[in-house]
Amino acid sequence: MKVKKTSVKGFYFAGLHCGIKELKEKKDLALFYSIVPATVAGVFTNNTLKAAPVKLCQKHLAKKKAQVVVVNSGCANAGTGKKGEKDALKMAREAARHFDTPLHHVFICSTGVIGRFLPITKILKGIADAKVHLHPENIDLAAEAICTTDAHPKCVYYEGNLGQRNFSVAVIAKGAGMIHPNMATLLCFIVTDLNIPQRVLQRLLNESVDPTLNALSVDGETSTNDTVLMLANGLAENAPLKVQTPQYIKVKGILTSLLKSLTVKIALDGEGATKCFEVNVIGAKSKKAALAFAQSVAKSQLVKTAIFGCDPNWGRVYSALGQTGLTVREDKLAISFGPYKLFQKGKVLFRNQEKAKDYLKENQVVEIQVQLFSGEGQAKMIASDLSYDYIKLNAEYTT
Amino acid sequence: MKVKKTSVKGFYFAGLHCGIKELKEKKDLALFYSIVPATVAGVFTNNTLKAAPVKLCQKHLAKKKAQVVVVNSGCANAGTGKKGEKDALKMAREAARHFDTPLHHVFICSTGVIGRFLPITKILKGIADAKVHLHPENIDLAAEAICTTDAHPKCVYYEGNLGQRNFSVAVIAKGAGMIHPNMATLLCFIVTDLNIPQRVLQRLLNESVDPTLNALSVDGETSTNDTVLMLANGLAENAPLKVQTPQYIKVKGILTSLLKSLTVKIALDGEGATKCFEVNVIGAKSKKAALAFAQSVAKSQLVKTAIFGCDPNWGRVYSALGQTGLTVREDKLAISFGPYKLFQKGKVLFRNQEKAKDYLKENQVVEIQVQLFSGEGQAKMIASDLSYDYIKLNAEYTT
Repeated sequence: MKVKKTSVKGFYFAGLHCGIKELKEKKDLALFYSIVPATVAGVFTNNTLKAAPVKLCQKHLAKKKAQVVVVNSGCANAGTGKKGEKDALKMAREAARHFDTPLHHVFICSTGVIGRFLPITKILKGIADAKVHLHPENIDLAAEAICTTDAHPKCVYYEGNLGQRNFSVAVIAKGAGMIHPNMATLLCFIVTDLNIPQRVLQRLLNESVDPTLNALSVDGETSTNDTVLMLANGLAENAPLKVQTPQYIKVKGILTSLLKSLTVKIALDGEGATKCFEVNVIGAKSKKAALAFAQSVAKSQLVKTAIFGCDPNWGRVYSALGQTGLTVREDKLAISFGPYKLFQKGKVLFRNQEKAKDYLKENQVVEIQVQLFSGEGQAKMIASDLSYDYIKLNAEYTT
Repeated sequence: MKVKKTSVKGFYFAGLHCGIKELKEKKDLALFYSIVPATVAGVFTNNTLKAAPVKLCQKHLAKKKAQVVVVNSGCANAGTGKKGEKDALKMAREAARHFDTPLHHVFICSTGVIGRFLPITKILKGIADAKVHLHPENIDLAAEAICTTDAHPKCVYYEGNLGQRNFSVAVIAKGAGMIHPNMATLLCFIVTDLNIPQRVLQRLLNESVDPTLNALSVDGETSTNDTVLMLANGLAENAPLKVQTPQYIKVKGILTSLLKSLTVKIALDGEGATKCFEVNVIGAKSKKAALAFAQSVAKSQLVKTAIFGCDPNWGRVYSALGQTGLTVREDKLAISFGPYKLFQKGKVLFRNQEKAKDYLKENQVVEIQVQLFSGEGQAKMIASDLSYDYIKLNAEYTT
């Protein structure tokens, strides 16, 4: 992969092959290092069977600072019991030793097969090697090293200013692919040189992740390892960011937009995905109801296959709305595909069928809009379609 | 289809082509008639956007008696607003007139495309034709006429005695197929000559449907039209069935077993399904928790594709358990495929992997067992796998 060489003040990156994946040309270990301890915020999977590295991250997050993040791909270290926890701890200890930082400044993530133990000797050697390969412009290598079945590494970058201070933000992520043959993980790492107190950083991260990464449905599965981490090392030397100031709103806008673009990249790179669709629900009784409707449509196998088939099948959207168990006023409801309204107030608009079909054929990122006319509640979800290749990736690559 | 010629005292059946489906050899209208009004019970979809015929059935059910059931396939009469309600009413009125019975003794069901109006003239003519074709042994034709994308009509039958009285039960159902290209419906009709008061009948039906048809997941979609109706006309002349007597328990056992066998047939005939799997959760904290775990596994796209690929992928089951948000004690958990335990107390049993794989390859109906060792809660779900043909059926048959 070639991306524009980017850097964020004080951050160093490495991505290399340490031997977890079979092919030598496949990178499987990433390491990020900040020359000063950074404030850190995290969002983790809701799956109650959290992988060992997730538990370690959650523990270290309580101390609010991070200096090193180590990520391996190819093995999730999930479903691995006490030994898995010890292995995650060994990784963290090794990194703490090499970088002369307290143990709780080290964060560990893993992605790949569930139920296998880490090849810990290879990984510990990999951490030493990574130290040698660290470079401010190596973020693209790190983005490559966290991938599993992703077709492309995913990296977005922003440079701007806050008053007199220049700052930058870089984000890398891996998608909701599955590997050999267990599910993998959504991992996302955000680094910035902004000065953001930890409490503010956590709120900023939550507010930016909610409408983006948390609004993504590839196959309705929540993995054991999903992790988003954000590090802010303060080297931009701006005044500490405060909640709800114009500066906060600016940074949140930038971060949300970066994460939105990554979310679409991830959806389009979902396993076997050919299209990404946004479900936009407006006029629900409440925000909660709007989200339930949007999720039901975004997760529907029937809607996903219809999008794959470029079929403007509003009937499946209609049924998915009712499946929530929430009341829908059919005599008010409207359903559109892109600009084409297909159902309105209990009536089918047959004249728009062909146009909606062409719209689906001609666009890779499409919108389904649902208007309920029952209140002010709004919500969006981003989803990928369901294709033959999803089945192929998840049925044929067997253990 | 050839099935053993069966009959239930006092019930007449017809199945014919009235012109909803294009091909003349495809039957699309079924009619059942009881020579005396029968008690009736019903279970309906939880989808809040109920099709017009479902609303009509629910209204008529309040009057507790049925004599005629009319079912059309090829058009769901869902998402059709006021006109749809009028059409359903027209069907019921026509049948009431032909069979000289009160309107509320007529029940109407529809299955097929959402958002199309019924070709009502053809259907009204079909009802008149059906009257001529009624025959006690024509239940197989009725079973054929309610099908949409089902590969086979589904009919099961039981003859037995209750004390001195002989009785019989016949059940027909159509599966969770989708058609041209909207989702269709699960429809199931049970007729018996037993004498069962309505309140008892409704309880019997609920208790028999819960562990069978309500425990079925083909693709996690709840249609707008799902309906189960049970008619009991009392011509077996048994003493009225009372709740929780030995007779009740016997009849419930028979009914549950008939519905279980139909449920497996429906799962195996799910769209593109190659296998049916039963998820058996035991030892959960409560029945509710057990059901949440079983549903999460049965609905998981990743588990479904693994079963299709004959991959004993316990890691996906493991992750689906945690996805419920409920606590799982990993140090106690056990996961088996058929007789082969693959995960136990935080440890992977690698020696059973190959055997479990062979087990999946060799059986069409397979079991996933989850033991939680946290209490007495148990639940079962029955599901079909997810194959290429599901995508084909639901993406390629476009409007």
